Amino acid sequence: MILNIAVLPGDGIGPEVTRQAVKILKAVGETYNHTFNFHEEIIGAVAIDKFGNPLPDKTIELCLKSDAVLFGAIGDPKYDNDPTAKVRPEQGLLKLRKSLGLYANIRPIKAYPTLLEKSPLKKDRIEGVDFIIFRELTGGIYFGEKILSDDGSYASDLCEYSEIEIERIAHLAFKTARKRKKKVTLVDKANVLETSRLWRKITTHIAKSYPDIQLDFLFIDNAAMQLILNPGQFDVILTENMFGDIISDEGSVIGGSIGLLASASIGDENALFEPIHGSYPQAKNKDIANPIASILSAAMLLEHFKLYEEAKAVTKAIERSLELNIVTPDLNVESKYGTKKVGNFIADYIANSDDINY
Amino acid sequence: MILNIAVLPGDGIGPEVTRQAVKILKAVGETYNHTFNFHEEIIGAVAIDKFGNPLPDKTIELCLKSDAVLFGAIGDPKYDNDPTAKVRPEQGLLKLRKSLGLYANIRPIKAYPTLLEKSPLKKDRIEGVDFIIFRELTGGIYFGEKILSDDGSYASDLCEYSEIEIERIAHLAFKTARKRKKKVTLVDKANVLETSRLWRKITTHIAKSYPDIQLDFLFIDNAAMQLILNPGQFDVILTENMFGDIISDEGSVIGGSIGLLASASIGDENALFEPIHGSYPQAKNKDIANPIASILSAAMLLEHFKLYEEAKAVTKAIERSLELNIVTPDLNVESKYGTKKVGNFIADYIANSDDINY
Ligand SMILES: [Mg+2]
Ligand SMILES: [Mg+2]
Repeated sequence: MILNIAVLPGDGIGPEVTRQAVKILKAVGETYNHTFNFHEEIIGAVAIDKFGNPLPDKTIELCLKSDAVLFGAIGDPKYDNDPTAKVRPEQGLLKLRKSLGLYANIRPIKAYPTLLEKSPLKKDRIEGVDFIIFRELTGGIYFGEKILSDDGSYASDLCEYSEIEIERIAHLAFKTARKRKKKVTLVDKANVLETSRLWRKITTHIAKSYPDIQLDFLFIDNAAMQLILNPGQFDVILTENMFGDIISDEGSVIGGSIGLLASASIGDENALFEPIHGSYPQAKNKDIANPIASILSAAMLLEHFKLYEEAKAVTKAIERSLELNIVTPDLNVESKYGTKKVGNFIADYIANSDDINY
Repeated sequence: MILNIAVLPGDGIGPEVTRQAVKILKAVGETYNHTFNFHEEIIGAVAIDKFGNPLPDKTIELCLKSDAVLFGAIGDPKYDNDPTAKVRPEQGLLKLRKSLGLYANIRPIKAYPTLLEKSPLKKDRIEGVDFIIFRELTGGIYFGEKILSDDGSYASDLCEYSEIEIERIAHLAFKTARKRKKKVTLVDKANVLETSRLWRKITTHIAKSYPDIQLDFLFIDNAAMQLILNPGQFDVILTENMFGDIISDEGSVIGGSIGLLASASIGDENALFEPIHGSYPQAKNKDIANPIASILSAAMLLEHFKLYEEAKAVTKAIERSLELNIVTPDLNVESKYGTKKVGNFIADYIANSDDINY
């Protein structure tokens, strides 16, 4: 397979973790005979510094003509802590998602056996947890009409959804469930909200095309409880924008390390892959940033192009690094391994499937 | 003090747990020389059975002329499992809240030392947790205009808030914080929602009248994380209707037992106190239902009328029953104590402050 991949390292630790993800993709390309072409552009604070614009046209153009985008992280204290700043690094990512028509945010949550002790949940609750959240990304109350009355004493936000917005992400969720435990849970508030009832009606209709998939429903308030009480019950969670924001953040902490979580943002023509952690400027250039979330985002990229065996090789290598405690200091304070060495181990393991040198 | 208390036991285990709460209030009245008058009426499934109406006029009239309402639980499988039922038990409570103008739902969350092992969270996260959620109950997206297009392909829900709706509950939250750890955390999504920005503006303004109280802000998605990562950071949480629904349910499970959680719904003229658990019809009349949540709701009633010493005596008696393992089977499967005996112990302890007979 030939893939043209736009690489946007961004700010802070973005460049060093993305470099490891590229290294891993190169190892996969060589081992499995694919041609992955990488082209790099700037985004975020570095782009503001250079062009006064967090998303230069050249960056958009590169992404539009690429098959996928590998994204690092964005944000710099120089802009984040300045309330008068009109141009902010984050605007670059929001505008990029819009320019690429990315309507589904996909967030896998997995409890790694070697990290159970780091979870805030007791072991019996978190053991074996492995689910994936599909969050609608372009509709709902975050994007509806906002009103503030002239006298400033009344405000409103409109939550809207249309059939097409629900259908396209629902199909993605059902297709993914097919490759997993064959269960989709729609999280909504259909006992109260009209938009939730539309989600339920359309999703129920779509489910008929996937007779092998079980469709469940859960109200958002109950889902927020179930994620703590029994997260092992979930396989694929499908939900609207704001509910997805809330439960994907809640879900991100139950596994015990945010340094192991990646996400994908998918549209009909393009897809972007990124770690969920931020730019962590304090750790920049210290060779201590955990590259695993970025490497996992590269594995999601491989899966997106149906390179399942290749993606599996990457996740297997990551699991082996965790087992052998070849990890950065965030996972083991006494670790002698840095960002690069963890990346090297994973790349070597993909190429050779052995760990005799470690 | 003379208080006229409307008692609405409702359905399922409602009557038996409410009976214990009344017993405790009588013990408090005798011990501290107050006159509490109790008048009972029906609500819920029993009222549908008798009058075809989950909230008969006589019940509303009693509540309106009482100082407070002690509420049990509502719901019966006969109606809940019948999708064609037009009259539902829950409608009784929703209509009652509206008739009494109850705009603030108050939910204390506390981790009892003897029950830490039951929490889904690890001990170091949940130990010492003691906070209280103020949820706005009559505004927001649950009550705004709902639209479904004629062709059924578009839906919307409007989230609205006005100054007065925010002010009255904000004052309640600040006043409560004064008697506690002097910290209010406003949970919103002010980076995206206009209504959240209104909440933030008005709450910030009100905070100036409470210079002894620290006001913090937290986005709802971050709050959903922090409730798991570090629930001990909270004192008083203030939030709008839907966010309050989500985090009060999330918060209700971190303590380990829903049988120990009570709530109050407050208006300018009236107040209603209830356990947060449901009618649990399977346990009805078996003398196994945990009366503590209902008894704690009676303690909240006492606090509401500034009977702080009396409320403290009740919570102290409850804590002693937990320490001595004088609890119902939900907290200890081998327990020989039933609903009544737990109520008796707590009433005796309030009257005598000793436990020599146990
Ligand atoms: Mg978020
Ligand atoms: Mg709820």
